[in-house]
Amino acid sequence: LKVLSLNSNPKLAQDIAAHIGTTLGKCTVSKFSDGEVQINIEESVRGCDVYVIQSTCAPVNQHIMELLIMIDALKRASAKSINIVMPYYGYARQDRKARSREPIAAKLVADLIETAGANRVITLDLHAPQIQGFFDIPIDHLQGVPILSDYFEAKELEDVIIVSPDHGGVTRARKMADRLKAPIGIIDKRRPRPNVAEIMNIIGNIEGKTAILIDDIIDTAGTITLAANALIENGAKEVYACCTHPVLSGPAIERINNSQIKELVITNSIPLPEEKHSDKITALSVAPLIGEAI
Amino acid sequence: LKVLSLNSNPKLAQDIAAHIGTTLGKCTVSKFSDGEVQINIEESVRGCDVYVIQSTCAPVNQHIMELLIMIDALKRASAKSINIVMPYYGYARQDRKARSREPIAAKLVADLIETAGANRVITLDLHAPQIQGFFDIPIDHLQGVPILSDYFEAKELEDVIIVSPDHGGVTRARKMADRLKAPIGIIDKRRPRPNVAEIMNIIGNIEGKTAILIDDIIDTAGTITLAANALIENGAKEVYACCTHPVLSGPAIERINNSQIKELVITNSIPLPEEKHSDKITALSVAPLIGEAI
Ligand SMILES: Nc1ncnc2c1ncn2[C@@H]1O[C@H](COP(=O)(O)O)[C@@H](O)[C@H]1O
Ligand SMILES: Nc1ncnc2c1ncn2[C@@H]1O[C@H](COP(=O)(O)O)[C@@H](O)[C@H]1O
Repeated sequence: LKVLSLNSNPKLAQDIAAHIGTTLGKCTVSKFSDGEVQINIEESVRGCDVYVIQSTCAPVNQHIMELLIMIDALKRASAKSINIVMPYYGYARQDRKARSREPIAAKLVADLIETAGANRVITLDLHAPQIQGFFDIPIDHLQGVPILSDYFEAKELEDVIIVSPDHGGVTRARKMADRLKAPIGIIDKRRPRPNVAEIMNIIGNIEGKTAILIDDIIDTAGTITLAANALIENGAKEVYACCTHPVLSGPAIERINNSQIKELVITNSIPLPEEKHSDKITALSVAPLIGEAI
Repeated sequence: LKVLSLNSNPKLAQDIAAHIGTTLGKCTVSKFSDGEVQINIEESVRGCDVYVIQSTCAPVNQHIMELLIMIDALKRASAKSINIVMPYYGYARQDRKARSREPIAAKLVADLIETAGANRVITLDLHAPQIQGFFDIPIDHLQGVPILSDYFEAKELEDVIIVSPDHGGVTRARKMADRLKAPIGIIDKRRPRPNVAEIMNIIGNIEGKTAILIDDIIDTAGTITLAANALIENGAKEVYACCTHPVLSGPAIERINNSQIKELVITNSIPLPEEKHSDKITALSVAPLIGEAI
C-alpha cells in the first residue's frame, strides 16, 4: 500500500498517511517552464495498491490534470490498483443539463478519471449523490455530517434548531438534526417577480433558538450569510454555520466576517489558505474518516 | 458548418472563419467565481458539423479543460460531428517513457479528447508524428514548413543553408532545404562528461553563409539562441530562425533579443501576447492552411 499526494492538499494527505500508519510515497509534482505538469514518481509502485490524494479544488483544471497524469504514470508503472481519494469533487455542480446546450462536466470528470485508468474512487459529500452513478468503477461516498455534528454536540448548545439554507439541503439538515436530537427549519427563498429581490421565508420556529445552518459547499457565501442574517432578524438567538467543502471564493471571507454568523465550522477537504483565515472559522479534519475508508 | 472559438486563440479562430466565408458561432466561455469553466453555446448546433478552434498552449490545463467541456456540451446538444482544430498540441513532448514511471501525457490527452466525444482532429506540426497513432479517430496533420519556406523564399536571400538545431529536427530541415534548394547543416551537441558544458559541433559548411535555423517548438529558446551564436562564431554571415509553435516561456524573449538571431519567424498557432512582442519577431498566419483543411 502506497499513499501519494498531489498538490491540492498535501497536509491532509500527510494526516491520512499518518492515520493509517505510513508515510507519503516519494514523488514530485511540478511544472515545466511553459506550465505543463511534470510528474516524477521516485520509488517503485509495481504491484502496489496506490492511493492518490487530490481534492480538485481551485485551481481546478490544474488539479484535475495533475490527477489524470498521475493516474497515467501509475498505470504505465504497473501499479496493482489505482485508488483516487478526492475529498472535494470539482465540477460537481455541473451535474445536469439545466438549460439547453449545457455540458455535464461532473460526468465528463468521471469519464476522464476512468479513461486515465483509475480503479476506485473515494469521495466525500458529493453535491448530488447521483454523481456516484456517473462512474462504472467502485466509488465510496463518505459523509461529513457525523464529524460536523460531533463538534456541535461537544459544545452542549441549548435549544438548537438545524436549518437548511435551501430546499436542496433538507436531507442533509435532517441527518444532522437526528444526530443532535433537534428540530429542523428551512429557508424558503422565493422571487415574487423577475428582477425583484428574493423574499426569505423561514419555515420552522426559530424564536430564541440557537440556529445551525448546514450546507455541502460554501462558495461565495451569499446564500449562507443572507440566511444567517434573516434568521437573526426573525428572532433567532444566535447562528452557527457549517459545511463540508469550504470553496470560499471571491467575496466569501468578507461576507462571513461581516455577517451574523457567530462561528463557521468547515472541514479540511479543501485547505484554507493563509489569506482566508478568520477568527470565525474552525476547520475539522476528515483524515480519520478517510483513513478508515482506505 | 459552424466554427466555435475557445479562449486560447480567438484571433486565429476569426481568421479561419473568415477564410472559409463564415463568422464565429455564438458562445461564451468564462469562469465561475471558483475558477470552474462555464460554457454557454448560444445557438443551436443540432445536426451541424462543428469545428472547435483551440490551441492547448499556456495556461495548458485550463485550455484542455475548456476543450473537453465544450466537446461534452456539443455532444449532448446533438452536433452531427465534432471536429477539433488544435494548431498547437499541448503535452506533445511527453510522448514516450524516457525514464521509469514517466507518464505519456500526449497519449492521455488523445484519450481524453476521444472520451469527451470528438470525431476528428486537425493539428499542425506535432512534436512527434507518432502522436497521430495515439488517436483512433481521424487526424489531419498539417505542415508549417511550406509557410515558413515561402516567407524566406520571398526575401531572396543568397547563399542560404538550412540548419537543424539538433538531430531530432533533421527531417524538417531537409524539407525546408528542398523547397529553398539549399544545403542543410546540423548542430551536433555533445557533452564530453557529465556536468561539463556541451560542445557545439557544426556539421556542414556555414562559412560566409546565411543560416536559417528551423525547429518545431521554441520554448525557453535556450537551444536555438546557443545554436545561433555558435553559427556566427563559426563563420556564418547572418542567422535567421523559424519555428511553427512559439511557446516562448520564461526567459525566451530576453534570450532572443540578446542573441545573434537577426529575425525569428513564427506562426500564429500560439498567439504572441503584447508583452512578448519584439522587433526581431515576425508572425505568419496559418489561417489559410487550416481553412483549406476544413
Ligand atoms: N462552479 C460553479 N460556481 C457557481 N455556480 C455553478 C458552478 N458550477 C455550476 N454552477 C451552477 O450552479 C447550479 C447548480 O447548483 P444547485 O442548483 O445547487 O445544484 C447550476 O445552475 C449551475 O449552472
Ligand atoms: N513542457 C515541457 N517543457 C520542457 N521539457 C519537456 C516538456 N514536456 C516534456 N519535456 C521533456 O522534453 C523531452 C522531450 O523532448 P524531445 O527529446 O525533443 O522529444 C523529454 O525529456 C521530456 O521530459
